[in-house]
Amino acid sequence: MKPWNDPTWKNAMRVRLAMGNVFEEAVGPEGGITRVQLESLYDRLRAIQREIAVKREAGALPFLDLPKQEISSILACVEQNRPKFETFVVLGIGGSALGNIACHTALRHPYHNFLPADSRGGMRIEVADNIDPDRITGLFDTLDLPRTLFNVITKSGSTAETASTFLAVKKLLQDHPRIGPGWREHVIVTTDPVAGDLRKFASREGLVSFDIPQGVGGRFSVLTPVGLLSAAMSGIDIEELLAGAADAVEYHARVPAEKCPAFAGAALHYLMYNHARAPKRLAVMMPYSHALKDVADWFRQLWAESLGKEKALDGTIVNVGPTPIKALGVTDQHSQVQLYIEGPNDKLFTFIETETFRNDLVLPSDNDLADLGAFNYFAGKTLGQLLHAEQKATTLALTRRQRPNMTFSMKEVRPYTVGQLFMLLEIQTVVAGALFGINPFDQPGVEAGKVATYALMDRPGYENEKRAIEQEISAQAEWVL
Amino acid sequence: MKPWNDPTWKNAMRVRLAMGNVFEEAVGPEGGITRVQLESLYDRLRAIQREIAVKREAGALPFLDLPKQEISSILACVEQNRPKFETFVVLGIGGSALGNIACHTALRHPYHNFLPADSRGGMRIEVADNIDPDRITGLFDTLDLPRTLFNVITKSGSTAETASTFLAVKKLLQDHPRIGPGWREHVIVTTDPVAGDLRKFASREGLVSFDIPQGVGGRFSVLTPVGLLSAAMSGIDIEELLAGAADAVEYHARVPAEKCPAFAGAALHYLMYNHARAPKRLAVMMPYSHALKDVADWFRQLWAESLGKEKALDGTIVNVGPTPIKALGVTDQHSQVQLYIEGPNDKLFTFIETETFRNDLVLPSDNDLADLGAFNYFAGKTLGQLLHAEQKATTLALTRRQRPNMTFSMKEVRPYTVGQLFMLLEIQTVVAGALFGINPFDQPGVEAGKVATYALMDRPGYENEKRAIEQEISAQAEWVL
Repeated sequence: MKPWNDPTWKNAMRVRLAMGNVFEEAVGPEGGITRVQLESLYDRLRAIQREIAVKREAGALPFLDLPKQEISSILACVEQNRPKFETFVVLGIGGSALGNIACHTALRHPYHNFLPADSRGGMRIEVADNIDPDRITGLFDTLDLPRTLFNVITKSGSTAETASTFLAVKKLLQDHPRIGPGWREHVIVTTDPVAGDLRKFASREGLVSFDIPQGVGGRFSVLTPVGLLSAAMSGIDIEELLAGAADAVEYHARVPAEKCPAFAGAALHYLMYNHARAPKRLAVMMPYSHALKDVADWFRQLWAESLGKEKALDGTIVNVGPTPIKALGVTDQHSQVQLYIEGPNDKLFTFIETETFRNDLVLPSDNDLADLGAFNYFAGKTLGQLLHAEQKATTLALTRRQRPNMTFSMKEVRPYTVGQLFMLLEIQTVVAGALFGINPFDQPGVEAGKVATYALMDRPGYENEKRAIEQEISAQAEWVL
Repeated sequence: MKPWNDPTWKNAMRVRLAMGNVFEEAVGPEGGITRVQLESLYDRLRAIQREIAVKREAGALPFLDLPKQEISSILACVEQNRPKFETFVVLGIGGSALGNIACHTALRHPYHNFLPADSRGGMRIEVADNIDPDRITGLFDTLDLPRTLFNVITKSGSTAETASTFLAVKKLLQDHPRIGPGWREHVIVTTDPVAGDLRKFASREGLVSFDIPQGVGGRFSVLTPVGLLSAAMSGIDIEELLAGAADAVEYHARVPAEKCPAFAGAALHYLMYNHARAPKRLAVMMPYSHALKDVADWFRQLWAESLGKEKALDGTIVNVGPTPIKALGVTDQHSQVQLYIEGPNDKLFTFIETETFRNDLVLPSDNDLADLGAFNYFAGKTLGQLLHAEQKATTLALTRRQRPNMTFSMKEVRPYTVGQLFMLLEIQTVVAGALFGINPFDQPGVEAGKVATYALMDRPGYENEKRAIEQEISAQAEWVL
């Protein structure tokens, strides 16, 4: 691998967008848009680009400045703790979990946690992002507590799932004969710099802690200590990850909007959602790289929570939002592609491809199978070639059936390109928010559910809500078979 | 746990469907249907039920008879091999993988593979269902080959992904100094009883093999040796699994269609897809049970490949098919629920709940956190209670916002209930196929992609296709940023 700061990389994105198959000439009038339609958005895209620059200057888009943050305290924390601990457990959910998982899957050995500690080059990483009791107690079964470090992550400091799991973990640590009062050395807190109950607790207990910068929401937080600490603990080069993101920010600020993948990607999603003949309200992201499968899951939150909104910025009721769908090449060819090809023409496909793999595997010729047509054509080809052939074949099959698709392409999956991809998709989301005319940074729809949970869990102060909710539930129509 | 053959279980499903929240009275005219609409389908449902009985009698629906199959050869194979091997690797994709994964996740410890061999009560199970070379070579890194047994599964005997991976595995085994010619004892074949290159190969090499019954397609094959062998190897009680499925078959044949969950479920999906005011073409399946998350992934193939069709039975072009989406409670509350609540009203939600967990965890009271409102309301409650509260809260929030939802509910996740759920969803799929007027058992749309893959991989006999495809690809519109 070239070093990430190779000078020839300076002026181009290492993640490129091929978008020929979204136009009518490739996928017809049911599937495609015209180049004129895209070009008619250029002025608006440039205006959005200027707006982003102005807002950033005013400090209103802090996620764009994350790549330049100081990471020495993270690196020092890693250096200090890696010799002491074998397992690093993130207690977090949503934006406090998905970026961690995405980094881990993308940039570590696919069986990282399974490898012997001395051959994996980093700590075992677990992310406890569901409170299912079988799942959580099952995780506990596998932990050697004296060698386990926990990272409690919640921006608000009061997320019910994280708070409850932390209570259970704290008791486990305190009850352990070899830990007891030493539990504090097993807990790192990542939360708001000043606000919230978890910050208060971390301060008075003297726990090691990191800040989630104010103004950076959970789904934009992968490049804060939320994602960086577990990445560094697992052995990922976070300096390179941030360098990729920094170059993507710089590129999208400098190059005319219509030539930037994030602006073009947002424009295409917007045009397809509003396609006059056959609206495409489903956005399928399908990496042809097992390593990138959880980047697609991370994107699912980013896209859904940012763009799924009842109200436009002017207060109009719009109930807008593309539905993101995670698929995986080649696996989902044997599950979803039948529907993608023959079902309704209501999807825009985004493939992600990598030109090379860390390890490819040459398929042997085999005398025992030489007469069998199902086996004898692979000799001398690689698994990577087969994967690429299948990707091309699927792209072709979709295009022939007028299903619009585009492809993010990278030379290799490494911290630099993953950093670029994260930032590119975050910028694409903000640009799409501007095109759809909604606020991509809030999530008002989930508030009611949180209140109802507090009420049903008898949290003090929610007694009236509890009575109302119980009445509502008992009044609900029942029809059980 | 009660034994699965408890006599009180005989006359009712152990998986029930609560569907009050699909009606207008609960979710209004944008979200709901009327009871009259549902009732107007009853005659059709009863006719479909009779048709199924007739076809089954004629041997045309063999998946319904799988629960009564003889499993002694599977159990004998397990008994013989479990002492010799530690790891069982399935080489299969799509219908030859998803059922195996679903059983494993549902019915084994969540860290089954991670536990020490002597405490997990079954072999380590791996399913190599993607040909990504990093993923496959990564798996190989973790295998102790002399202690590894491979199960090559492909119905046609020629699936490219499985054939190529098998070639690589065979060479690994033959090259191993302690295996060499003994490779045959490390391979079990599951394929068509007579047809295909893999069957031919297994016969002449004298490999242990199992049959995929003719007429049972991949996505309906979880209860054939495809899914049963790995399940039994991992320690799952497959007799109980089949007993649940058998009782579900019997129930859906005996009880009037309109009182069967599978028929009602199919009818509701059909009505919602064709909802006059706001069609719901997305089918979200969201288990509130970590164990059932891969059942939702298995269902994704079943639903998409069975119902996503270009042509109706009479040849009319319909391009029909609901898009299945897998979500997970509570995790996806922090990712997708904002969109589900505020975005377009275009989804029908199916929750799956379990009343009890194998292990619940009581949350402690904690003096250090007693003054902090984010932490102090959990004392004495369990994680299971929190999960149920969140499920209720989400259901309530969706219902208030007129998003239709229904819930499959079971007392506990165990082989019997999982067997019922598999069969229930398979019957629901076949009934939905009848309502939509398409053939749920074919998949014509994926043929073109297979041919293109063969051509791009230089398989003999596909030379003309290769030339055509290359011209087509080079003629495709390019626009790269």
